[in-house]
Amino acid sequence: MQGLAPSSKLSLTVVVVVFLLGMAGAAHGLTRVVANSPDEPCMNMTLYYHDILYNGNNTANATTAAATKPTALATTYWKNSTYFGALMVFNDPMTVGRALPLAGEEPAARAQGFYFYDKQESLTSWFGFSIVFNSTANKGTLNLVGADLMGDATRDFSVVSGTGDFFMARGVATIRTDAIEGLYYFRLQMDIKLYECYV
Amino acid sequence: MQGLAPSSKLSLTVVVVVFLLGMAGAAHGLTRVVANSPDEPCMNMTLYYHDILYNGNNTANATTAAATKPTALATTYWKNSTYFGALMVFNDPMTVGRALPLAGEEPAARAQGFYFYDKQESLTSWFGFSIVFNSTANKGTLNLVGADLMGDATRDFSVVSGTGDFFMARGVATIRTDAIEGLYYFRLQMDIKLYECYV
Amino acid sequence: MQGLAPSSKLSLTVVVVVFLLGMAGAAHGLTRVVANSPDEPCMNMTLYYHDILYNGNNTANATTAAATKPTALATTYWKNSTYFGALMVFNDPMTVGRALPLAGEEPAARAQGFYFYDKQESLTSWFGFSIVFNSTANKGTLNLVGADLMGDATRDFSVVSGTGDFFMARGVATIRTDAIEGLYYFRLQMDIKLYECYV
Repeated sequence: MQGLAPSSKLSLTVVVVVFLLGMAGAAHGLTRVVANSPDEPCMNMTLYYHDILYNGNNTANATTAAATKPTALATTYWKNSTYFGALMVFNDPMTVGRALPLAGEEPAARAQGFYFYDKQESLTSWFGFSIVFNSTANKGTLNLVGADLMGDATRDFSVVSGTGDFFMARGVATIRTDAIEGLYYFRLQMDIKLYECYV
Repeated sequence: MQGLAPSSKLSLTVVVVVFLLGMAGAAHGLTRVVANSPDEPCMNMTLYYHDILYNGNNTANATTAAATKPTALATTYWKNSTYFGALMVFNDPMTVGRALPLAGEEPAARAQGFYFYDKQESLTSWFGFSIVFNSTANKGTLNLVGADLMGDATRDFSVVSGTGDFFMARGVATIRTDAIEGLYYFRLQMDIKLYECYV
Repeated sequence: MQGLAPSSKLSLTVVVVVFLLGMAGAAHGLTRVVANSPDEPCMNMTLYYHDILYNGNNTANATTAAATKPTALATTYWKNSTYFGALMVFNDPMTVGRALPLAGEEPAARAQGFYFYDKQESLTSWFGFSIVFNSTANKGTLNLVGADLMGDATRDFSVVSGTGDFFMARGVATIRTDAIEGLYYFRLQMDIKLYECYV
C-alpha cells in the first residue's frame, strides 16, 4: 500500500464526457470535463480516514489534537458531553484499505485540517481539510468542507476544488463511519466522486 | 413554518438556461444549468439566520458558544473590544420569516459552522458553515465561506458547493444585518442566489 | 501603491475564451469565461501577503493574533515546537510590491481569515481566508482554502469562489515563502490565476 500506485487499486475511474468546446491551447494535453448528471462522475475513489486523537500518552502515534476544550454549554445538556465548541486539528493518514499504514509505510494520502463539534443536543461536527497526495501515483490536493451529521448513516462533504493532479476538480465525498474504538480512534470511509475534472 | 414546504413560501425560483450539451445518461433526470450572467440565477431563496449566543444562563435556547476568548490584542484598542480572535461555533436555526421557530417547530434549515472576529480596529468576522436542509421539501446542504464586513450595509458570502437537493450548486449569498438585540442575539438576512445548479 | 489602480501594475491579464453559449440576458454586460486548460487563465495577479504577529508589544502594527496555544502534542516532538493546534487569526495587508504599506497608505487588498498549524513532526498549516479588495480599481472578494505545505518550495491554495468584481471566480493561488523575519513576521508571494471568470 505504498501510495496509490496502480489506479486499479484506487478503483479510480475516469469517464470522459468532453465539453464540446474548442480544444485550442490545451498545451498540457488537459481537457476540461464536466459531468452532465450525478450518474456520471469523471473520477471515483474510496479512501479511509483514520483519526487518532492525542490522549496524553500516545505522542508517537497521535495525529489529531484538541485545540480548544468543549464550552460550558456542551456539558450542561449531556453528562458525557456533545463536545460543543471543541476544535480538533488533524494530520491524519488516509489509506486505500481499512488497515492503518504499517510502521514506516507511507499512507495513500494525508488529510490535513480541522473539525469541531457544533451542537448542544447531539454529536455533530463541521470539517474543513485538504487531502494531500504525495506519491509517485498522485501529487496534488483535494479541498473539502462540509457538515458531518454524525447521526446519519451517510452524509456528504463537498470537494470544493483541487490542485496538481486534481487541478480545479469539484465533487462530493460521501462519508460513512466505518469504526469507532473508544474515545481516541475513529475511521471514516470516504467515497469521493468528482464531477468536474481536467483530464 | 414546518420546513420549507411550499416552494412559493421560499420565494424559490428556478430559471432553466440549459447547457447545450448531450443529455445522454441523465438517469436522475437532472441537468446541469449554468447562468450566463449575474442577472440570471438558476435558484433564489431568502432565509433568516438567528444567532443566539450562550450567556451562561440560557442553556435551553443558546445555539452559539464561544470556543476561544478574544486575544489580548482585541482589548488593547477598544475598551469594549472588537473580539479579535474570538471563535464562535454555532448550530443556528434559519427561517423563512423573521420570527424564531415556535417551541417544537422545526426551522426551515440549520446553519452549522463557525465565525471568528478578525480585526483589531473594527468589528469584522469570517464565516465557514453549512446550511443543512432536512425537511420534506428540501434535503441537502449548501456550503458557504466568506468575510462578513460588518461595517458594510450588505456583503457577500460565497456558496462554494452543495449536496443532496443542492448537488454541486454554486452561488452568492448577500447578507444584511436585520436585527441586533444586546450582546447575545443577532439576525442576518441571507439572499441566496445560485448560478450553477442541477435541476 | 494606492490600491490596485492601473491594472498593469497588478500584471492582471484577462484572456477571453468565451463559452459558445447564448448571450441573451447578459444585462450587466458580463459573460462567463472558462479556461480550456491550465495554460489559459482568464485572470492573473501577484500579491504579497504580510503576516505581522502580535508579540505582546506591537499593538499598533500587529495584524495577526494567536487564538489558541499549541497543544501539548506540539511540544513533545520538537523542543522549539511545531505549534500543532495553534490557531492564528489575521487581517493582513496584501501589496503589489514587497514593501509594507507606508503609514496611512491603503494596501491593495486585505487578507482576512485564519491558519492553524496541523502537524506534530514538521511545520505545516491550513488556511481559510478572503482577499478583500476595496479600492477604486477593485471591489469584491476572493475566497481561498488550502494546505500550506511549508516544506515545499511552492504549494497551491484553491480560489474556491469570489464576489463583486470577482463574481463566481475559481482558480489556483501558488504560494512561495518570500521572507521570514524572526518569529513575528513572514511574507508570502501569491501568484493567483483564475480559470473561471465573468468578464
